[in-house]
This record gives sequence, structure tokens and C-alpha cells, in this order.
Amino acid sequence: MGGDSGPAVTMPACLSILCRNLSVTLLLVGDESQIKIYLKGLSRSELCRIQILHTSVVFADTLRPDNILRSGRESSLFLAIEQVRSETAQACISAGNSGALMLASRHLLKNIQGIEKPAMIAILPGSRASGFTYLLDVGANIETTTNQLFQFAIMGSVLIGALSGKPRARVALLNIGSEAHKGTPVIREAATLLDACNDFDYVGFVEANQIFDGIADVIVCDGFTGNITIKASAGAVKVIENLMHQSIRRRWYYRAFGFCMKPFFRDVRRVLNPSKYNGATLIGIQGVIVKSHGNSDWAGFEQAIEHAFQQLALNVPQLIAARMQKTVDVA
Amino acid sequence: MGGDSGPAVTMPACLSILCRNLSVTLLLVGDESQIKIYLKGLSRSELCRIQILHTSVVFADTLRPDNILRSGRESSLFLAIEQVRSETAQACISAGNSGALMLASRHLLKNIQGIEKPAMIAILPGSRASGFTYLLDVGANIETTTNQLFQFAIMGSVLIGALSGKPRARVALLNIGSEAHKGTPVIREAATLLDACNDFDYVGFVEANQIFDGIADVIVCDGFTGNITIKASAGAVKVIENLMHQSIRRRWYYRAFGFCMKPFFRDVRRVLNPSKYNGATLIGIQGVIVKSHGNSDWAGFEQAIEHAFQQLALNVPQLIAARMQKTVDVA
Repeated sequence: MGGDSGPAVTMPACLSILCRNLSVTLLLVGDESQIKIYLKGLSRSELCRIQILHTSVVFADTLRPDNILRSGRESSLFLAIEQVRSETAQACISAGNSGALMLASRHLLKNIQGIEKPAMIAILPGSRASGFTYLLDVGANIETTTNQLFQFAIMGSVLIGALSGKPRARVALLNIGSEAHKGTPVIREAATLLDACNDFDYVGFVEANQIFDGIADVIVCDGFTGNITIKASAGAVKVIENLMHQSIRRRWYYRAFGFCMKPFFRDVRRVLNPSKYNGATLIGIQGVIVKSHGNSDWAGFEQAIEHAFQQLALNVPQLIAARMQKTVDVA
Repeated sequence: MGGDSGPAVTMPACLSILCRNLSVTLLLVGDESQIKIYLKGLSRSELCRIQILHTSVVFADTLRPDNILRSGRESSLFLAIEQVRSETAQACISAGNSGALMLASRHLLKNIQGIEKPAMIAILPGSRASGFTYLLDVGANIETTTNQLFQFAIMGSVLIGALSGKPRARVALLNIGSEAHKGTPVIREAATLLDACNDFDYVGFVEANQIFDGIADVIVCDGFTGNITIKASAGAVKVIENLMHQSIRRRWYYRAFGFCMKPFFRDVRRVLNPSKYNGATLIGIQGVIVKSHGNSDWAGFEQAIEHAFQQLALNVPQLIAARMQKTVDVA
């Protein structure tokens, strides 16, 4: 039910996944009457792989996240996470209220032992042909301690290890300059911790204009900074897209030969398509929870579901738990 | 001497200003032998409007800013600000170490009475045809209190009033969401202060993806967040530019008919050209100090000089001092 468009976006994405992937069973939590509209035309075998858990309560995006534990326990968002807790579902994907998703996940599933705060981890588009850069936290925590930033680095490097098979991820800290004296005391102390850690290669501070350059596999920051970073980037992309379209509308020859420009726009959009990067995993929780952007289209929501599959296939929460256990043993 | 290229960028910009503006006298602070290379070919009347204050000491970008007061007093950066203090110069423009420029300015020129911390104010490109959005602070202060954010809003609104004649600027706070419960306690408390202020129209929280939309004339944030915001935007612009050039290189028909694409790129660059937005004024200081980006080209450095002219013509420091005096009187 979450996101700007609710089932109009989430349902087509779910059905596309259902048809493409025969081993998937969907447990749809929300308003049954709204959901059923989208189920017309499905075959019996497809319908067999769909269950509906009805609730008419939706936890709105505009509500204070902490209300989820007081008055939101009947909402689709809370009930969906409850299905993961009771092991009725293996993962939960939602386009709903981020803060509420985080709070309810922490409350119902608990953090992985040794992790003080879970983080939202996002994938950044890059100008390189291959490879990923993960940015965390992008919004789960507004204020973060040195030790929490260190834990984010550990979680990011475990994920990169599982995804790419790389034994050592390159980990950087997001800062306002590359020199050692730059940034807040928290960031500077985190640099010392990361530099001393043997789990990954610490590559130093990166500035926000370098995050797409492929300098690091994992970039660590607090959730406020991460959120500002991805939104400022998205805003700049939107400005350029507007300028490009204005240019085409302004000049008759571009309007007349618009078809010539199509491959150009396709080339640019292929890399920057926001759907391709949709889906921020809530990492550090004992379970797989993926947050889709509220204004994502159905291709983006489908991508968020794919992220959940990937996390499950790689056993990411278990891998992080095993890594944190090692720390506890050493301590 | 500052910036990535030193006199190779700053000198052509200075000479262009000198030739275009007959009422300008330049006081060039730096290595005389390097400066003189660029003075060949000037007429006697032009040379009459140039003075050189020689120093061979340059305060490097990589040095800790606080060293400027200990070991940097012979540097071109410190001496240039000293010329403003002694009223030998009316304004100082530098592409050097930002932190050092700020510290030396505060030390030599002092803050305007009532201003706890000066801020760097940057102009944002926008998708609107007209109008400006100012963002402050973009790097002078890493951590900021509620009251300091409030003072940034006052300074920004005074500047907008002077520039545009608008009696009431629209002022917003940069945050990670538009709802009242979003953000840090400092930002939420600042929202209360701004909302109660009669100097401007407080328009609420804006998110980083909305900063180019022209929602506000002034957007206020701490220097860490502002720095991340402008750098993340610049990084995203760079990614798109790379993608556009890759697309053109990849397809034979774009290579062959490349001239057809020129107006398109010109349209986009006309708005996003970083030179056009170069020059962050250090606002809140008893004097006019403008910081040019370290990797700016000479057109950008020229723009930074133009900013200084504008601040002088509008009497910006005096206007802010008068506004702060009003606050002191009320208190």
C-alpha cells in the first residue's frame, strides 16, 4: 500500500516478479479489495502462489515514524514486517514510511548482535562500466557515533564480499575534504578505526563530487549526510534533464529530427535510470527488509524485490551476524 | 597565488577585469616574478592601475587552516586580507585555502556585531529562467547551532533584499524531509525561530532534490551539509556530461554530425556552467571577502571578482550590520 501511488505501482511489479519467477510466493499485505483489482486475468497456478493478508489500515508517509509502535500495529507496513518475524515470509519489501519501516523492523526483528544501529544501504550509479558503489547510511539514522560508522563499514564490506567475491572491499568515508584534518571529530575518529581494521582496504576520505568515480566499493556516512547526498544528486540530474528537454523544444531542427536524439537519451538514461538503483536494504537487522523509493515506478519496485532475493540468496544477515560474532569473540 | 593553477588562472581574470573596468585598481599579492610574466603587453595607463605586494610565501591548500595564524602571516592569503583590514584594498578575492581564508578574515576583520559565525554563501543554478537561490553555509562552519542557522537566514535575506529589491525573501531550511518531525533537533528548533521572524517569509523545509526548483530565495543549512550538497550536485552533473560524451563517441552518426549537437550542449552548459556560479562570499565579516573555487577557470575567477564589486556596490556588510543592530536594540 506504500509509496506515492500504492498498489498501482506495487502490484504490477509483484505480478511481473510472480510470472518471471516460478519459485516465488507472494504474501500481499494490504487492502484486499484494492489488491484483487490487479489479480484479474491471472492463471490458477499463479493465483496459487499469492496470499493476501487483509488490512484496511495504511500508515501514512506524513505520520511521525514513532507512531507505528503506538497506533500503527494494524497497518499493512507493521503487519508485513510481522510476517517476517513469524517466519511466514522470508523478506519484506515496502515503499512506505522509511522511519516507520526502520522502527518496526528494529522492534520486531531486532538488530543483529553487536550492531548498534541498522542502516539503509543504497547503490550509486557510476560512470564506470562495471562495479558498484554502496553508500550507507542514506537515512535510517540522523546522528551517528564513530563506532556506528565503523559498524556501517563492516556491514558494507561484508555485503560487497558476498556480492562480488572480493576478499577485501575498498571502504571510504564521505567527508568535505580529503585532508586528515577535515570534517567532524566523529568522522576523523572513524577514519582512525577504519584505517586500523583488517577486514577491508580503507581508502580515506572521499568528497561528495567523487562518489560516482568508483574510488571505493563502500562509502560510509551518517544517514542525514547520505540522504542529502543522494537527493542533491537526483536534483542535479533532474535539472539537466529539464535543460535537455528545453533545448529540444526550443530548436526546430531538434524537434523535427527528434528521432535522431532518441539513442542519445537512451544511452544517458540507461545508466542513470532511477529504477535501476531503487531499493535500499535495511542492513544490520535480523531479517531482509528492503525500502523502495516512495515515487518509484513499477520497474523500480521490481528492482527492490530483486534486492530482497539477492540478500536472501547470499544470506546477508547471517554473514553479518557471523562477522560481528568474530568481533565479540575477539573482544 | 591560490587555487589549483595559481596565477595562470587568476592573472588573466584580473587583467580582463582591469581592461573592462576603468575605475578598478588591482592590488596583486603574491610572487612578483610570477605575476610580472602576465603584465607584458599592458599599456602604461593599465599598468598604473596595478600594484604588486610581493611575497614568496604561499599557504598551501593541504595545510591545516589554523596554521595560518601561527606560521602563515607572511603568506599571500594572509597579506591580502591584511590589505582589507588596513583599508588599502576594499575587497579581497582568493582561490586559496577556504578554511584559512575564513580564519584569517575573522581574525583580521572581525565578525559583524551580533554574528556568531560568518558563512560562505553560494549561488545555485536553477531550472527557472530568472531568479537566484542562495545556499548558505557551504563550508565555513562544520557544526552550527540553532541561533547560527537563524543568523544565516537573516544574512541571506538581507543580501536578497539588496540584490533584488524584494522586501521579503523566501527562506527555507535544508532538511531530509518536509514534515515537521524530520531532521536534527537543531534544524527543528531553527524552524521555530525562522517561522516567528518577520524579516522574511519562511517557506519550511526543502529537501536536497528541490534546491534547484526555485522554491526559496535563500536556503539555510550547516556548512558540512551545504558543502556535501553542492559537491554531490557537481558530481552528478559530471557523471551526466561523461555519459553524453560517451554516447557521442560510441555512435558514428553523432560523431559525423557532431556540429548538430553543439547548440544542444551549449544550451545545457549555458545554465550549468560552473564559472557562472563561481565565487562564494564570506558573509558576516566586516569586509568583503570572496572565495573562488580552487579548480575554477579564469572566467570563473572573473565572476568571483564581479561578486566582490556587487557586494561593495550594495554595501552588504553595512546592511547586515544595520540589521543586526536592530536586533541588539530590540533585545
